[in-house]
Amino acid sequence: MLTYSFEDIQQESMYEHLYRCIKQDILHKKLRAGEKLPSKRAFAKNLGVSTITVESAYAQLVAEGFLYTLPKRGYYVCDLEREEPPQQPPRPASPPAREPARRTYWADFVGSSVARDMFPFSVWVKLLRDVTAGEDEGTLLTDTSAGGIRQLRQAISDHLYQFRGMSIDPEQIVVGAGTEYLYGVLIQLLGRRWGYAVEDPGYLRLGKIYEKNDVVTHHIPMDQHGIIPEKLEESGAQILHITPSHHFPTGIVMPVSRRYEFLSWASKGADRYIIEDDYDCEFRLAGRPIPTLQSIDVMEKVIYINTFSKSLAPAFRISYLVLPKHLVTRFYDTLGFYSGTVSCLEQMTLARFLSEGYFEKHINRMRNHYRGVRDKLLAALRQSPLADKMKISAEQAGLHFLMELDTQRPDEDILRDAEKEDLRISFVSQYYVAARDRRPHVLVMNYSGLEEGKIDQAVQRLCRAVLGENSALASAER
Amino acid sequence: MLTYSFEDIQQESMYEHLYRCIKQDILHKKLRAGEKLPSKRAFAKNLGVSTITVESAYAQLVAEGFLYTLPKRGYYVCDLEREEPPQQPPRPASPPAREPARRTYWADFVGSSVARDMFPFSVWVKLLRDVTAGEDEGTLLTDTSAGGIRQLRQAISDHLYQFRGMSIDPEQIVVGAGTEYLYGVLIQLLGRRWGYAVEDPGYLRLGKIYEKNDVVTHHIPMDQHGIIPEKLEESGAQILHITPSHHFPTGIVMPVSRRYEFLSWASKGADRYIIEDDYDCEFRLAGRPIPTLQSIDVMEKVIYINTFSKSLAPAFRISYLVLPKHLVTRFYDTLGFYSGTVSCLEQMTLARFLSEGYFEKHINRMRNHYRGVRDKLLAALRQSPLADKMKISAEQAGLHFLMELDTQRPDEDILRDAEKEDLRISFVSQYYVAARDRRPHVLVMNYSGLEEGKIDQAVQRLCRAVLGENSALASAER
Repeated sequence: MLTYSFEDIQQESMYEHLYRCIKQDILHKKLRAGEKLPSKRAFAKNLGVSTITVESAYAQLVAEGFLYTLPKRGYYVCDLEREEPPQQPPRPASPPAREPARRTYWADFVGSSVARDMFPFSVWVKLLRDVTAGEDEGTLLTDTSAGGIRQLRQAISDHLYQFRGMSIDPEQIVVGAGTEYLYGVLIQLLGRRWGYAVEDPGYLRLGKIYEKNDVVTHHIPMDQHGIIPEKLEESGAQILHITPSHHFPTGIVMPVSRRYEFLSWASKGADRYIIEDDYDCEFRLAGRPIPTLQSIDVMEKVIYINTFSKSLAPAFRISYLVLPKHLVTRFYDTLGFYSGTVSCLEQMTLARFLSEGYFEKHINRMRNHYRGVRDKLLAALRQSPLADKMKISAEQAGLHFLMELDTQRPDEDILRDAEKEDLRISFVSQYYVAARDRRPHVLVMNYSGLEEGKIDQAVQRLCRAVLGENSALASAER
Repeated sequence: MLTYSFEDIQQESMYEHLYRCIKQDILHKKLRAGEKLPSKRAFAKNLGVSTITVESAYAQLVAEGFLYTLPKRGYYVCDLEREEPPQQPPRPASPPAREPARRTYWADFVGSSVARDMFPFSVWVKLLRDVTAGEDEGTLLTDTSAGGIRQLRQAISDHLYQFRGMSIDPEQIVVGAGTEYLYGVLIQLLGRRWGYAVEDPGYLRLGKIYEKNDVVTHHIPMDQHGIIPEKLEESGAQILHITPSHHFPTGIVMPVSRRYEFLSWASKGADRYIIEDDYDCEFRLAGRPIPTLQSIDVMEKVIYINTFSKSLAPAFRISYLVLPKHLVTRFYDTLGFYSGTVSCLEQMTLARFLSEGYFEKHINRMRNHYRGVRDKLLAALRQSPLADKMKISAEQAGLHFLMELDTQRPDEDILRDAEKEDLRISFVSQYYVAARDRRPHVLVMNYSGLEEGKIDQAVQRLCRAVLGENSALASAER
């Protein structure tokens, strides 16, 4: 009779060990298809184990398809032969899986970052504790509605009323795990058969997301007020994705005349919509916030999108859509089966963070901080050798300004020299996709990740890079 | 000269009030295109306000495109005329946006739910506090890498090794906000031009997600071992999405012979892949976990997917993919630009929850709880009038079992009577999409949301619904 040793059993249970031994013998064909295994009782006696052990091992082998039973006759080995493992040789081992390493820079004028110590973690943890202690825990565990939890949508709607003058129902809000995810939701909602128009130059990732979602993307050229309406019309696109409050990278605030023009464009086609991307409206550093397109839209043509990843911190993946009312119905009819994508705990916590005034405090604190960084950076630039070779613009909105350089050096050369200075910078010319004329010599200075203590030295390095001075020397020094 | 009253100013600041007055006059054409506004100083004097107030109001109106400046000449009204607001009458007001109300039931044998009080919130909050206090807060705020944070991927990889015997690099893991989101990622990774095959009957939402993502979906019929290989081959699909450890709704555990058959199928085409959906492997209530397809795949053809929404609680939206190594490279090349979708705070907290052993404890506790509910429910059924009219199967895995009814009544009639009993139930026959022969009379009894105290009465109601007894009476009583 079949015999196995139980000596090298180590951490396994008896039945697991027996299961493994029999499985090995089946795989190596020591036990052949159709062969009958010993009865449970006889086998147990032979091995000196309990019948339960044999029974459990047999049951597992049956569950996995190695054995089959015939009622009142016993256990037999399955025929694996017919369905042999692939005959091809195993794929040659791939090299270890690797994520591309991220280059970090001494100073970064490109990446979206956030000042350390700026986020009130202790408040957040306290609110989370209150939420788990006070709310109905059942809801916390089970509410996964597609649009987001009620409390958060109410809080966002109140916030938009106070801060953006937008009058909307909480039902119009759809919460999702980041704007990139929500772009995908919009494509599913509006359909893949329309062309989507984006700004050129613009936020490059947006075009990539449309491309990865297999929608036709039109990169429409801009004038000093935004996308050129005639070019939009020519493209045949039906969905227009724009950033009227603050265009990236040029900083253009779209004037009201152009806004009306686009609303008029949208009203001319049943399937036309405007996606208003209000990604950094919280960081307008002077004057009132620019009113949204959504708030002057009487035709239900504007879909508003915004994120808390910029205003809280990038690590929070919470964004939202405001849908026109008729699209709310379409959303629940066609996509309402989806589960939400943001943890209920975080939604509840954010709802309190908003409604108890912590968000406003946090934003004010961030705004003051960024204003301070910007002013210091501008002051340092104005006392630098670049002072009479630059023109600063668009410094009131968002977390970057433009710096037009009076230089003949190609942008590529300056980029290369900045790289040597361990600085990450970018030019407006890098944000074009289709346009042939690319405005040269204009730096996009994103200062959100800049540490105050590094400003003076960062400006020195930038000067060297722009002027092409000492770049060989600097590189040798490091 | 232009004059405005500052009496009804209420909560506005002076400059906001002035801004609003001028804007109204421009919109109502009391101020006409090209008209020059008073100089800042003269206007301020006339209104009895400071020059700063006028300057701020003018600046805002310029920013929004209502005024323009000519250097050294002053402020002029923009021409909005040319770009009139849409001529169409405003869209008739939509009815208030409404989400469809969700019907709640006295007892629910369908929805994924979770027992209240089962989640250790206090542990979670404590870990979150530790994370925010102890870790580098900078990382917490800024790490949004596409694959997920390092600590969590390491913890998942350790967990899969111990619990599922899977040997994988943390780099192979991609964390995302729910499996539904990750299905979308896979479509972007593998491409939309292939057919995707799913099980019929199966998890209906899966087919809907593929449909909404505009990929051709093949609903492949099953035999008692899973999808029928010949039907798969005939369909021409290149991507096979299956649940080998535990099929929903039939509870089939795919035998090893069929597994090898599919691995063999996948090895025959460069673009063929198998998506192994291991959605509830944690809840196998007897024996060892069934080994994964991923762990016997030597050709890098299996993409493993699992979720914490089932094992922690539905409100947590954290799932993950395990990619074959060569797909890791493709993922970062083509989709690496995406931001992660799960908050960094939650990822860090979950990493600790896993690595400090809380997850295993939680799962064991849940498993014991569910085993108790299942046993009580089965006992109650076996003492009910249905005892000799039912055959129970597939009760060892996952959180549902099958109950084949010895009845001639159509499933629809029983569903209608259950509705009257305020019970939510479902039949296997409801989970077919394309198949013509639908196995009738088999109830899918999901007991994860069932409260223990309700079991006896729930069984009574179920008996009445199945037997068609007293249904009119019961409905009258309520």
